[in-house]
Amino acid sequence: MSLPTPPKPQGRYVPALRVGELVMTAGMTPRVDGVLQFTGKVGRDVSLEDARQAAAVAASNAVAAAAEAVGSAELIQRALRMTVFVNAAEDFTAHPQVADGASDALAELLGERGVVVRSAVGVASLPGGACVEVELTLLA
Amino acid sequence: MSLPTPPKPQGRYVPALRVGELVMTAGMTPRVDGVLQFTGKVGRDVSLEDARQAAAVAASNAVAAAAEAVGSAELIQRALRMTVFVNAAEDFTAHPQVADGASDALAELLGERGVVVRSAVGVASLPGGACVEVELTLLA
Amino acid sequence: MSLPTPPKPQGRYVPALRVGELVMTAGMTPRVDGVLQFTGKVGRDVSLEDARQAAAVAASNAVAAAAEAVGSAELIQRALRMTVFVNAAEDFTAHPQVADGASDALAELLGERGVVVRSAVGVASLPGGACVEVELTLLA
Repeated sequence: MSLPTPPKPQGRYVPALRVGELVMTAGMTPRVDGVLQFTGKVGRDVSLEDARQAAAVAASNAVAAAAEAVGSAELIQRALRMTVFVNAAEDFTAHPQVADGASDALAELLGERGVVVRSAVGVASLPGGACVEVELTLLA
Repeated sequence: MSLPTPPKPQGRYVPALRVGELVMTAGMTPRVDGVLQFTGKVGRDVSLEDARQAAAVAASNAVAAAAEAVGSAELIQRALRMTVFVNAAEDFTAHPQVADGASDALAELLGERGVVVRSAVGVASLPGGACVEVELTLLA
Repeated sequence: MSLPTPPKPQGRYVPALRVGELVMTAGMTPRVDGVLQFTGKVGRDVSLEDARQAAAVAASNAVAAAAEAVGSAELIQRALRMTVFVNAAEDFTAHPQVADGASDALAELLGERGVVVRSAVGVASLPGGACVEVELTLLA
C-alpha cells in the first residue's frame, strides 16, 4: 500500500497542520484522484465491504496529508486518535467493522505506529454524500 | 467583527480551558445574548445562507470562549482544529459550504491565525434544536 | 462510585493511550462486564433518565481506560475534553441533560479534576445500537 496524493480541501481549511509534536488532519472522505468513491448510506446504498474499503481510502488520505505536513511518512512517530464518521442508517450497528477498514490501512501504512484510540459513530449525512469521513491526530 | 460574550454552558461543563499551550472549547451553538438563533434542519428548515451565518456565530462564540480562557484574543497564537456539526437531513451534501461560514468568522477574527484543519459532518440533532455546533482547539 | 473494568475494544484499536502529558480514550459505549446496556434511540426507545445513566456508565468506562493507561486514577491530573455522542431522533433536543450524566460521573470519580469542555451531539446510530458513546481527553 502506497500513500496517495492527499485530496484538495473542499472548503476554507488546510488538510493537515503540525503544532509542536502533534499533527492534526482535516476530516477526509474517500477521494481518489479528486473523485469521491462510495457515496450513500452504509448498509443501504453501500455494502459493508465497500464501506470498509472506503474507510481505508479515507484513512490513507489522512495519513498522506499528515505526511505532507511533516515532510514524509517516516517522520510520523505514530498515530494517536482516529474518529470514523460513518454515513449510516438508524438501524446500522456495524460501525466497528467499517472503522476496522481504516485501522487496517493505518496498520499497512504505519505498522505498529498505526495503533490508535478510535471513535466510530453513525452520522446523518456527510460532505458530497460520502459514505465515511476519517479524522486523525498523530505524533511527529 | 467583534467578539461576542461567550454563551453560558448548557450543562455541567466549562466553555473553554487551557492546558499548556493548548486551548480547548466546548461545542458552541449559535447563541446571541443567550438566545439560540437558527433552529432546525439545514436544507429543510434553515437555508444554506442562514446556516452559514449560524456557523459564523457559533465559531465566534468559540473564539470568545477561548479568548476569555487565556485573557484576550491577542494571546491566541492560532486556531488549530475545528469540528462543525451540521444538523442536516440525510440527503444534505453541502456541509463544507456551511462550515465555510465558520472558517470565514475565524479569518475575520484571527486573520492568518484562523487557518485550521476541519471536519464537517451531518448529525441527527443538536442541543435545543440548534442547526449547527462548532468546537475549536487552539494554540495560545 | 468505583472504577469499572474497562471494556475490551470492539475492533482494531486500543482503549486508551498516553502521549506526553495527554491521555486519549477511545469512544466508550455503556458496557458493563462486556454487555451493552441501554440500546436504541434516546427519547424513543430509551428514557432520558436511562440515557443519563448510560452516559455515566460510558464515561466511567472511559476514565477506567485512562486510569489503566497511566497506571491508576490518582495519576490523572484532570479531564480536559469530553465528546458525548447521543443516539437521538431528529426531534430530540435534550442532549445536554444526557451529557450531564457523563459529567456527573466525572465529578464523582475525579472531583474537581473532572471539569471538562464538552460537546454533545445527536447521531444517527452507534456501534451495537448503543444509546450513547463518550470519548475523553485527559491530562496525566
